[in-house]
Amino acid sequence: MYHIGIDLGGTNIAAGILKESDVAPLLFAQARPADDSQPLVRGDSCLLYKDSIPTHPARSAEEIIADAASLARTVAHRAGVDFRDVTSIGFVSPGTVNPLTGIVVFAGNVPFTNFDVKSHLRRHTGIEKITVDNDANAAAYAEAVVGAGHGVRDFLLITIGTGIGGAYVSAGDVQRGFNFAGGEFGHTVIVVGGEKCTCGRLGCAEAYCSVNALIRMTLDEMARADAAGERTLLKDIAEKTSGVNGKTAFDAMREGDKVAERVVSRYIYYLATALTNYINIFQPEILAIGGGISKEGEYLLSPLRRIIYSEMFNHRQSPDKYTKIVTASLGGDAGVIGAALLAVKEWSHKK
Amino acid sequence: MYHIGIDLGGTNIAAGILKESDVAPLLFAQARPADDSQPLVRGDSCLLYKDSIPTHPARSAEEIIADAASLARTVAHRAGVDFRDVTSIGFVSPGTVNPLTGIVVFAGNVPFTNFDVKSHLRRHTGIEKITVDNDANAAAYAEAVVGAGHGVRDFLLITIGTGIGGAYVSAGDVQRGFNFAGGEFGHTVIVVGGEKCTCGRLGCAEAYCSVNALIRMTLDEMARADAAGERTLLKDIAEKTSGVNGKTAFDAMREGDKVAERVVSRYIYYLATALTNYINIFQPEILAIGGGISKEGEYLLSPLRRIIYSEMFNHRQSPDKYTKIVTASLGGDAGVIGAALLAVKEWSHKK
Repeated sequence: MYHIGIDLGGTNIAAGILKESDVAPLLFAQARPADDSQPLVRGDSCLLYKDSIPTHPARSAEEIIADAASLARTVAHRAGVDFRDVTSIGFVSPGTVNPLTGIVVFAGNVPFTNFDVKSHLRRHTGIEKITVDNDANAAAYAEAVVGAGHGVRDFLLITIGTGIGGAYVSAGDVQRGFNFAGGEFGHTVIVVGGEKCTCGRLGCAEAYCSVNALIRMTLDEMARADAAGERTLLKDIAEKTSGVNGKTAFDAMREGDKVAERVVSRYIYYLATALTNYINIFQPEILAIGGGISKEGEYLLSPLRRIIYSEMFNHRQSPDKYTKIVTASLGGDAGVIGAALLAVKEWSHKK
Repeated sequence: MYHIGIDLGGTNIAAGILKESDVAPLLFAQARPADDSQPLVRGDSCLLYKDSIPTHPARSAEEIIADAASLARTVAHRAGVDFRDVTSIGFVSPGTVNPLTGIVVFAGNVPFTNFDVKSHLRRHTGIEKITVDNDANAAAYAEAVVGAGHGVRDFLLITIGTGIGGAYVSAGDVQRGFNFAGGEFGHTVIVVGGEKCTCGRLGCAEAYCSVNALIRMTLDEMARADAAGERTLLKDIAEKTSGVNGKTAFDAMREGDKVAERVVSRYIYYLATALTNYINIFQPEILAIGGGISKEGEYLLSPLRRIIYSEMFNHRQSPDKYTKIVTASLGGDAGVIGAALLAVKEWSHKK
């Protein structure tokens, strides 16, 4: 028995297929200590085949779903799986999704508004068992089952990109809130009266810890250095990449640039503040950081740990009681894998 | 079958007894919609008898436990219950508690440090089945089962006193974190670089939303009014109560005092900021506010709702998808009731 995951994004629709027997023991086994055992399949090796096609978001939701359905047939075919052996499909999108009804309420930059994904996917694939969820929930679930959070009961994924996403997975369940709108970790104020956030509030974590915020801080510091006549590599590096991006400050810092060091320190301090808040509330065994910024690895994690472990409420406990802070391990495949795993969770024969 | 709850505080040890059959259906039934049914027993009417004695915290932990054990015998006796019919005892204290081992790791102003409450209570009562937990967890569990959060799956209690406590209860489980140190809602920074908090961080919610913070704001505004020659009732009211307390500003505001209005607005804005953060993360169906400040009722709740419902991430959802914001309903008995209910949860014959 096989399950397909589909991850709808503003740019691409990605899909992948996995075999139930490869992953079901991971989902339904009791959580084990992190160091006790490795998952049967790790990372994207649980996907037998994956592929993606452009979303073309100017089209109607119906057309997009029709394309997603044929992509599902393609990945099954290429994996050498008879489509009749596909038990279920998991579909995830950004925005507000009601997993009970299978309706995408609102999806941001994809034209899905109160759109009944479940019925449309059923019609286009002939598969009855459809799971619909939010992409951040899927990514966190994937990391919890076969990624950075494997084997622990309490896991938090924070994804840092244009915005800040995240989800908390406890005892194998993604925490969604009663109205499925929870997990908005980025929209928690850390600077009362601070920078305007996309959500309308002032001073949200997203306005200080997202890649967009890092770019703003880099530009601000460049302007300040410029005005003060201070030398910095930031400008040269930015020119090579046709503008400042989320790597610019980290790259310049690694070449010893003092101005860049200030930018990175400032950014990391805000991020540590937000993450310490989450840890004080949840105390997950593992907190994983996903998104592009996680490629900075120890340049990001090491100063983060130093601040968080000295500021968090339980810093006097023994270090084996500290939340482990790591990078996410599934990269861009987390959504597809999570979509498929959420479908396995709902529809597996082993349930 | 009967269960006893014991709530250890810095001033008093409180205990109460309840009947398993009165509460077990509430604990083990599927969560129902809030408006669907009333609990069988509401509030402290689930306690057959309750009593309290002074803690005398200068004594040793052994002496305090011996007294707590005899208080347990007293409440059983006064309730007309044969002590042999007591199935279990739940014991809660402030601080860090490990429910797995029954050890109170650290309890603040009570002399319990790495103290094995479970073994000592067993020895002093002859009762094998002992549950040990944190008092804030117990209070939230009590509110979730027989109080303000009855009947909903996702419930958040925030208790506002000298500090800020709280716990999230989802699907009948208190969320504690992997190391049992979670739920420190007060220790989340909302003002980077702001007021020093008791935990050492700068700008925590506790430093802006606790009763201590409200008192500080009241004193600050009195000094400012004094310096500016502005008339205010705050001083007169404070004199009658031998000093500023958490009611002073609310009382003066109700008499039309403009300076007091500013204090209350400022305080409520910070509190709304913190609560909106929690709602954006958890989206509980009900958020209850406990502690002394909750006696202000609609003077507190109504402006809080106005700010929160306009600032929260999902404010464009229909209002039936909004978190209900209410006051806690069990008052000072929440700890005792919760201690007993946590014991029922762990040891009930119906499990």
